[in-house]
Amino acid sequence: MPAPAYPDLVNKLQRAHLLGTVSDVLGWDEQVNLPPDSGDQRAAQLTLLAELSHTTATDPAIGQLLTALEAGPLGAEERVVVRQARRDYDRATKLPADFVREKAGHCSRAYHAWADARARDDFAAYAPFLEKHLELAKREAAYLGHGAAPYDYYIDLSDPGMNAARIETLFTELKAGLVPLVRKIAASPVKARRDLLQGCPVAQQDIFLREVTGKLGFDYRRGRIDVSVHPFCSGTGSDTRMTTRFDVNDPLKALFGSIHETGHGLYEQGLPREHAGTALGIHAGMGVHESQSRLWENQVARGRPFWKHFEPRFRELFPSQTADVSAEQLYLAINAVKPTLIRVDADEVTYNLHIILRFELEQRLFRGELDVAGLSAAWKQASRDLLGLEPANNREGVLQDIHWSGGAFGYFPSYCLGNMLAAQLWYRALGLMPDLEQDFARGDFSKLLGWLRREVHARGRRLLLLDLAREVTGEDLTPKYLLRYLHERYATLYHVRP
Amino acid sequence: MPAPAYPDLVNKLQRAHLLGTVSDVLGWDEQVNLPPDSGDQRAAQLTLLAELSHTTATDPAIGQLLTALEAGPLGAEERVVVRQARRDYDRATKLPADFVREKAGHCSRAYHAWADARARDDFAAYAPFLEKHLELAKREAAYLGHGAAPYDYYIDLSDPGMNAARIETLFTELKAGLVPLVRKIAASPVKARRDLLQGCPVAQQDIFLREVTGKLGFDYRRGRIDVSVHPFCSGTGSDTRMTTRFDVNDPLKALFGSIHETGHGLYEQGLPREHAGTALGIHAGMGVHESQSRLWENQVARGRPFWKHFEPRFRELFPSQTADVSAEQLYLAINAVKPTLIRVDADEVTYNLHIILRFELEQRLFRGELDVAGLSAAWKQASRDLLGLEPANNREGVLQDIHWSGGAFGYFPSYCLGNMLAAQLWYRALGLMPDLEQDFARGDFSKLLGWLRREVHARGRRLLLLDLAREVTGEDLTPKYLLRYLHERYATLYHVRP
Repeated sequence: MPAPAYPDLVNKLQRAHLLGTVSDVLGWDEQVNLPPDSGDQRAAQLTLLAELSHTTATDPAIGQLLTALEAGPLGAEERVVVRQARRDYDRATKLPADFVREKAGHCSRAYHAWADARARDDFAAYAPFLEKHLELAKREAAYLGHGAAPYDYYIDLSDPGMNAARIETLFTELKAGLVPLVRKIAASPVKARRDLLQGCPVAQQDIFLREVTGKLGFDYRRGRIDVSVHPFCSGTGSDTRMTTRFDVNDPLKALFGSIHETGHGLYEQGLPREHAGTALGIHAGMGVHESQSRLWENQVARGRPFWKHFEPRFRELFPSQTADVSAEQLYLAINAVKPTLIRVDADEVTYNLHIILRFELEQRLFRGELDVAGLSAAWKQASRDLLGLEPANNREGVLQDIHWSGGAFGYFPSYCLGNMLAAQLWYRALGLMPDLEQDFARGDFSKLLGWLRREVHARGRRLLLLDLAREVTGEDLTPKYLLRYLHERYATLYHVRP
Repeated sequence: MPAPAYPDLVNKLQRAHLLGTVSDVLGWDEQVNLPPDSGDQRAAQLTLLAELSHTTATDPAIGQLLTALEAGPLGAEERVVVRQARRDYDRATKLPADFVREKAGHCSRAYHAWADARARDDFAAYAPFLEKHLELAKREAAYLGHGAAPYDYYIDLSDPGMNAARIETLFTELKAGLVPLVRKIAASPVKARRDLLQGCPVAQQDIFLREVTGKLGFDYRRGRIDVSVHPFCSGTGSDTRMTTRFDVNDPLKALFGSIHETGHGLYEQGLPREHAGTALGIHAGMGVHESQSRLWENQVARGRPFWKHFEPRFRELFPSQTADVSAEQLYLAINAVKPTLIRVDADEVTYNLHIILRFELEQRLFRGELDVAGLSAAWKQASRDLLGLEPANNREGVLQDIHWSGGAFGYFPSYCLGNMLAAQLWYRALGLMPDLEQDFARGDFSKLLGWLRREVHARGRRLLLLDLAREVTGEDLTPKYLLRYLHERYATLYHVRP
C-alpha cells in the first residue's frame, strides 16, 4: 500500500512532465515547421514555458512530500520514483536563480561565439567562453554537493550512476582493441564507395525508409517522421516525433539516420505509458538510449540478413541507380569505414575513437592537467594518436562540435557507452534466440523488439546503465562485445588479419 | 504619459496572450500533424494549458490594476486597452468554477450527441442537449449581467458592440433584395458547371495557390499553409498558420478556400505586432475578420481582372484539364450559383440566406417564440421560404452545423455581417482608387492591401464593427453595397433582369 503522500507526489511529477511535453512539441515545430521570421515569438513562448516548468518543478510542496516519503518505508517502485524526484528537485532548487540566469546568458553568448569562431577558424576568440563554461560547471557541481568531483557530476547527469574512473577503464580497454583495427582497415586494399548511389529521388527514399522503420516496429499511429536540418527524435511514447534529412546522392544517409532515430523512438514507445512522468516511465539515461538507436542502426540494419530481406525492395525503388551495383558493392557501401576528422561523419568503427578523444580531453580539463589555451594543440595530438589524422584547422578539430558551447560536458561518453551496451545486448539476444537473424532475413524483427521491450524498455529507470547491463546480460558492462562485433563485421569485409 | 499601473497591466495581458499562442500551436498541430492514437496526450496538454491560462487571466492583480486605471484619467489608447481587458477579466472571473465545469462537460457530451444524431438523422436524440445549451447560455449571460438580453450577450461576444435588433434591421433589408435574386438565378437558363476541371494533381494545385496567395501579399516568412480536414487560419501575425484541403476534381475548392484563409491571414499579419496581446493589437471582432477573408475571396478573386492576370498561369499548370474549357466557362465555374441545402457548400449569393435562416431561428429560440422541439419543422419551413428548397432530412437541415453543439450561439451572424462590410469596403476602395482593378489585371494587389492595412488592420480593436464601418467608409454599415455587388457580378452573368 503506497504511503499517503505518494500519489500526491506522482500527480505533481506528471503535471511537470506534461508541461515539458508541451515544450517538446514547440521545439519539434521550431525545427520542422517554423517560418523563418517567426523565431522571436517562438523564443518568447519557450521562455515562458521554461519559467512555468521551473515554477512547477520547484514547488515547495514537492520538497515536503519528498522529505516525508524519504523518512518512511517505501516499496521498491516507490523508492525508484522518489530517488529520481529528489535528484530533479535538488537540481531545480539548489542552483541560485542568479546562477541559472548567468549560465543561460552565457550559453547564448557562447553559442554565438562558437559559431563565429568556427566560421573564422579562430579558437582564441572562443577560448574565454569555454573557460567561463568550465568555471560555471565547477560552480554548478559545487552547488549540488559535488564540488570535489565536478566531472563526475556531469557524467552522472547524462548517465546516472556512471563516473569518470569507470569510463576510463572501459575506454582504455576499448582503445587498445580499436586503434589497431582502424589502422588495418585504413590500410586495407578494400575501399568502400559512398558515392555509389547517385540521383535517388527523395520521394522514393521516403517510401523505403517508412517501410523499413515500420517493419522494425515503429508505431506510426503514435509517431511521425519529418524533415529537419539536424535529425532528432523528440516527444514521448504517446507522440514520438522523429526527423531525418535527405541527400539525393546518398540514400543511405537518410535511411540509416532514420533507423537510428527509430531505435530511440522504439525505446520511447516501449516505456510504460501509465508511468509517464515518473522514473518508472522514463528512459534509464543517455547511454541506454543510445544503445537502442545503435543496436537497430548497426547490429541489425548493417547486417547481411537485414539486407537479404530489404535489398530486392531497395532495387525495385531505385532500379536505374542500382543497375550497375553488385550486392557486395552495396553491402560494402553500407559498411564503409574510413577514418575522418569529423565525428558526425564517422563510421561506426572510428566513431568510438572520436568519443574517447573528447572524453580524455574533458577529463584533463576538469582535472586541471590541461588549460583551455592548450586545447587546440592537445586535440591535434590526440587526433594523430587515435585517428592517424591531423586536423588542418580548428574547424576540423576542437571547434567542430556544438556541445561544449552549451556547457554540455560529460555528454560525449554516452555515445560510446551506448555502443558498448548495444553490442553486449546483441550477443545476449543472439545467445537466447539463435534464429534471430533468420527472422530478419524474412523481414520479421518482432522477437528482438519483444525482448528489448521486456528487458530494457518496460523497466523505465528502475535500473541504471551498469545495473541494467548486469541484469540483462549477466555480465558487467564491458567493451569486449563491441570489439568482437566490430571484428566480426569488418575484419572479413576489409580482409584484415586478426 | 501612461498611468503607472498601465505598463503592469500590459505586461500581464501580454503574458496571457503568449500562453494562448502556445495553445494555438498545439491546436494547429492537432489538426495538421497529430498521429491518430496520440489524442489523449494532446487533450491532457490542452487541458493543462487552459488551466494555466485561466489562472493567468483571473490573476486578482489584474482586477486591482483595472479598478485603479478605470478610476483615473486615461489616454485614448489606454481606454481601448482597459475596456477590452475589463471585458475579458469579467468573463474570466464572473463565471463560477462549477458553471464552467458544467458547461465544458456539456459541450463535450453535446458534441458527441450531435455527431451521433447527425449520423442517424435523429433530431429528437439531440434536442435535450440543445435545450440544456440554451439554459446554460441564459445562465452565462445572467452571470455577466446580461440576463435580460442573453442573445445580445452572445452576439456581442462575437462582434463587440453589435446586437440582435440592429442585425434584424440589416438582415431584413438584405433578405428583401436577396431572395428574388436567388430565385431568378436558380431559374436562369445559364448553368455553371462545378465539375469542369477533373484530374488536377494536388502538387500543381499547391503551386498555383501558393503563387496566388503570395501575390495577394501573404508573408510566407511569417506563416505557412498546410493541409487539414477542416480549413482554418490560426496563430498570430508573428506566425500565421493557414490550412486548406484538396480535391483533384475541383481545384477551385482548395484555391478559394486558401484565398479565404489568406484574407484572415493578411488581417492577422497586418495587426500591429508591437501591441500583440492588448486590444490595440487584436482584431476588431469576427464580423470584421470575416470581411477581410470575403473581400479577397469574393470581390477580388472572383473578378475578371484577377483572372485576367492568373488565367494564363492556371492553364499552364493544368494544360490538358483546361484544353476544352473556354475563358467564359471557367469564369462561370468560378462564379457558380446554385441554391443548396448545405451552408458550407453554398455560393456567395445564397450563403447569406443560410445565415439569415440561422439568425432568425436563434432569435426566436432566445425570445421563447420557438421551442427546441419545434426547431426541425421551423428549419424546414425557413429553408423553403428562403432557399426555395426543403431538406429531405435533418442532416440536410437542423443537424448540419457543429456550432450549436458547442453552445456557440450568436456566431452565425458574423459571417453575413462580414460579407456586408466586405462589399462596403470594396466600393469605398474603388471610389478612392479607381484604377485598382487595372492593377489586379497586372497582378498587383498592393494598393488594396496597403489601404486595408492602414484603414482596418493597423487599428487593431480601436474601433468596433459599426464604428469602423462608419469611420472607413463614411456610412453606417448597410447591406446595400453587398446587394449592389451581387447584382453587378451575377445579374449579367446569369442573364437576370433587374
